[in-house]
Amino acid sequence: MGAAYSSCYAHSLTFPVDTLHAFPITASSKSNPNLRSTPFLYSTEKIFNTSLVQPIRIMSQTTFPCSSLAVKRGEVEEVETQGEGSTRKPVFNYHGIDQDLLQEMVYDALVWSSLHGLLVGDKSVQRSGKVPGVGLVHAPFALLPLSFPESNWRQACELSPIFNELVDRVSLDGNFLQESLSRKRVCPQILAADFSNRTKKADSFTSGLLEIHSKMLKMNKKEEIRMGLHRSDYMLDEQTKLLLQIELNTISSSFPGLSCLVTELHRSLLNQYGEVLGLDPRKIPDNSALSHFVEVFAKAWIEYNNPRAAVMFVVQAEERNMYDQHWLSAVLKERYPFDLYNTHNITTIRKTMAEIDAEGELLADGTLVVGGKPIAVIYFRAGYTPNDYPSESARLFMEQSSAIKCPSISYHLAGTKKIQQELAKPGVLERFLDNKEDIAKLRKCFAGLWSLDDSDIVKKAIEKPELFVMKPQREGGGNNIYGEDVREALVRLQKEGTDGTAAYILMQRIFPTVFPTFLMRDGICHKDFAMSELGIYGAYLRNKDKVIMNDQCGYLLRTKISSSDEGGVAAGFAVLDSIYLS
Amino acid sequence: MGAAYSSCYAHSLTFPVDTLHAFPITASSKSNPNLRSTPFLYSTEKIFNTSLVQPIRIMSQTTFPCSSLAVKRGEVEEVETQGEGSTRKPVFNYHGIDQDLLQEMVYDALVWSSLHGLLVGDKSVQRSGKVPGVGLVHAPFALLPLSFPESNWRQACELSPIFNELVDRVSLDGNFLQESLSRKRVCPQILAADFSNRTKKADSFTSGLLEIHSKMLKMNKKEEIRMGLHRSDYMLDEQTKLLLQIELNTISSSFPGLSCLVTELHRSLLNQYGEVLGLDPRKIPDNSALSHFVEVFAKAWIEYNNPRAAVMFVVQAEERNMYDQHWLSAVLKERYPFDLYNTHNITTIRKTMAEIDAEGELLADGTLVVGGKPIAVIYFRAGYTPNDYPSESARLFMEQSSAIKCPSISYHLAGTKKIQQELAKPGVLERFLDNKEDIAKLRKCFAGLWSLDDSDIVKKAIEKPELFVMKPQREGGGNNIYGEDVREALVRLQKEGTDGTAAYILMQRIFPTVFPTFLMRDGICHKDFAMSELGIYGAYLRNKDKVIMNDQCGYLLRTKISSSDEGGVAAGFAVLDSIYLS
Repeated sequence: MGAAYSSCYAHSLTFPVDTLHAFPITASSKSNPNLRSTPFLYSTEKIFNTSLVQPIRIMSQTTFPCSSLAVKRGEVEEVETQGEGSTRKPVFNYHGIDQDLLQEMVYDALVWSSLHGLLVGDKSVQRSGKVPGVGLVHAPFALLPLSFPESNWRQACELSPIFNELVDRVSLDGNFLQESLSRKRVCPQILAADFSNRTKKADSFTSGLLEIHSKMLKMNKKEEIRMGLHRSDYMLDEQTKLLLQIELNTISSSFPGLSCLVTELHRSLLNQYGEVLGLDPRKIPDNSALSHFVEVFAKAWIEYNNPRAAVMFVVQAEERNMYDQHWLSAVLKERYPFDLYNTHNITTIRKTMAEIDAEGELLADGTLVVGGKPIAVIYFRAGYTPNDYPSESARLFMEQSSAIKCPSISYHLAGTKKIQQELAKPGVLERFLDNKEDIAKLRKCFAGLWSLDDSDIVKKAIEKPELFVMKPQREGGGNNIYGEDVREALVRLQKEGTDGTAAYILMQRIFPTVFPTFLMRDGICHKDFAMSELGIYGAYLRNKDKVIMNDQCGYLLRTKISSSDEGGVAAGFAVLDSIYLS
Repeated sequence: MGAAYSSCYAHSLTFPVDTLHAFPITASSKSNPNLRSTPFLYSTEKIFNTSLVQPIRIMSQTTFPCSSLAVKRGEVEEVETQGEGSTRKPVFNYHGIDQDLLQEMVYDALVWSSLHGLLVGDKSVQRSGKVPGVGLVHAPFALLPLSFPESNWRQACELSPIFNELVDRVSLDGNFLQESLSRKRVCPQILAADFSNRTKKADSFTSGLLEIHSKMLKMNKKEEIRMGLHRSDYMLDEQTKLLLQIELNTISSSFPGLSCLVTELHRSLLNQYGEVLGLDPRKIPDNSALSHFVEVFAKAWIEYNNPRAAVMFVVQAEERNMYDQHWLSAVLKERYPFDLYNTHNITTIRKTMAEIDAEGELLADGTLVVGGKPIAVIYFRAGYTPNDYPSESARLFMEQSSAIKCPSISYHLAGTKKIQQELAKPGVLERFLDNKEDIAKLRKCFAGLWSLDDSDIVKKAIEKPELFVMKPQREGGGNNIYGEDVREALVRLQKEGTDGTAAYILMQRIFPTVFPTFLMRDGICHKDFAMSELGIYGAYLRNKDKVIMNDQCGYLLRTKISSSDEGGVAAGFAVLDSIYLS
């Protein structure tokens, strides 16, 4: 979800370490100044002018919570841990890597990125978010793939089509969406609470979407062709060894293009350096996100069945992650210059919400026309934040149209945190899915998710706030509440006499495995400890009763420096990574 | 030759025009202020926010020389022209192009460049010449291919293997090189003349190379394996319709990587827009420069026959055209990770002259070792300018080694202007080549080239300086003398009592065809009139008597805005282009 690199980690946390492979952990302190440090920076310039590379940092004793939550079927159980956390064994000995070899790999990786379009717009260049081809810089990436258990990888892949189906079923239950998300259940005191202005904004945003959804219900609008390009994000909890879902993105699932490139980059590096590193390039799984996404566009276009119609990317006016999007349109153009019968052109256009507002027309037959072109597929890479909307009208008349929306308003709402929390309640999955095995698989990956109605949980969270995250119902990172702020927020809500609200949910805090790693940003190699979040892309397309596609398709691994001691979002940065099956 | 975009045009000239397809031309005036204008700039930002695109500029009456030189076998004959010059018909109607279509093509081309590595380092970003992956910007390119007569294209291709062979034969005649280039023939008065400091510097540079060559002759050093990656540059003279050689580059022939990408870019655009433009993508000839260059590296490496040895790219410390070079090493690594027997790794290293000075060793058996690695092939992408040399020692001991040099000092010297001029003298080609047809083909493409010994020519050049270019014997653009400066320089030389010198040659000035075109730089589309220079790459490899490769391999078309009235190098900029056969 979203295009930014920052703040994607719902459960970021901090633990500088004092040994490489194992380190003691004790309860986290927000204000421990020892834990703040700048990671060593290895500029490639330095690297190529000197053989001196500084050793990996050795830090003071670390702090870490010593218990975690094990969750089964929506209930919670506190599990005492051994009092020590440990990183899994990394794929190779980062500590002892030959420095010349490292320098070579860094250089080669930067060259590879430049030649193969693993690029983003450089924030420091003003035009780079608007004009392609200028102000380019390599996308941030991890130099090497991250070790990931094959069993958890397979588990995550298996979940993908089940989640695709779940989203589709939930989207059809308009009342469930309305009841779960309705403003009626949002406590006014919370909306007035001042601890986060963003929260209020987020909430009114979801309300706006819900109003559009309500209008669609009233006019009995049916989406016969339904298309989903989702990404379900997971973390591997170190203590319980469980793969736990962070969130399910049903709008603007980003990086299908660049994530494939990182996989290729890592394969290329292991083809060259694998032998000396003791790493086998074949252990990096294929990443088909890009080609699958493009296939869905082409197949959806066919289903829409208007040879003159275009695929429309709804984009932000400034977008530094534009090349991830351009990979989709470029490969679509390359592979499907014509439709599957080789007769009609599939063209792509890019429009902002404001442009659609200005240029869009809704014809009497339901056809959406933008800039004179009928639209077959609307692909949202914007629209997940209120800032994208000059008004609600564009989203409303897109929704009213016959164009295939990726996502429709129902799919969009099905991806909210509140729905995630509702689905985690006992018995709710059974309303949407029949297959008991599928239900069990989904439930196994659910972290603890609770409404603030639950006074037992609220009490527990006030006692041990470090084990919880408070999340606003709008999806997207950056608005979560961690650590002491959880306690403060909950205590304030209690004082104000509220008994809980749908404006927030409480979620079990996940403590993922930590690895030593090399992170590349702005041409500089940072050697540090990091944690990762695995996103599995899912592609879904159906036309009435016919399911045309329901596939797991590729993955995104984002690795983030864990070098901040903030209870909230870590001050580090996220890079694109790939998986090394172990 | 050289990596810079600027000043590559040996014969740049200026002629703003008053009609699109034909315009009257009269004698050039250096000081006509009417002829200076800034071309309209079309920023893509503007393009996507407004449909207003300004029309192609209409300019005041133009000035242009009304005669040109026809040259046969080194003699000169003045040809009266019709008093009017004309551009050839462009491939399509630039004037009437639909502005929305233009905007779309501009955007698509910029995206294509970013995704496919058609990149250079951005001058405005300090690190972009040193660190890959940062400060990237699309390489300047023409939006569409340039119409070029198929017969001239074939002629240029046919010449390539003949020039390859000629360079090889000339390189074996050490006395010819020494006699032609020796300082003994350089008049001291001219060296002392103050009209160009660069000239003196250039001359002492050639003298330095000549000394190394002389040392090699004395030690009877033989190059058994000889490798050439040349580029012969031509312009098509508008009046005589002759394809005339500008120069033959035997060192650092640049753009084998990016020129292929521009060809692919243009094909991609014509695949999409060709029908509406009335252009057929199949009329853009294949460009195999990159794959051919890489093949030569691999084959030369095999001939050197040391499985541990590396290919060494000699580079400048700062190189904003590094991606052109990286394409070579990347494709070499991709296609030939192992040798042709699939047993040994072919690795590439990049070193500056200073690094080679510091790290290089010459073993007793002649093996060159740099940074601990034996070197099989030395590929110079630096060394063509005195600035690259911290001292002469690096070049000297590379030359003394058994490594395959691309180029050897002999090949390097065979590419100087003075040798080009010597070869153009009657009877000289016959010293090196046997095949009369080949000789005739070469001679047909020779422009008028004269030594300053020739008092008739000097007199003529003083009378009509606009018909000549004075070139220093060192190759590379930017040091040439044009227009009134030719007269001044020659008069001064006469006053100083000199009777001519090898420090300069006089060359017929070529007036190429001019086209309306769209030039892309820094994300901005410039609509202007431009002229082009065609470079044909040649690849040559032999081991003793066995010629392993002697091929024409791809091409470079550089198109340059003709919007300056300076007699010398035009104030415009050069972009990469491709050919549309007509």
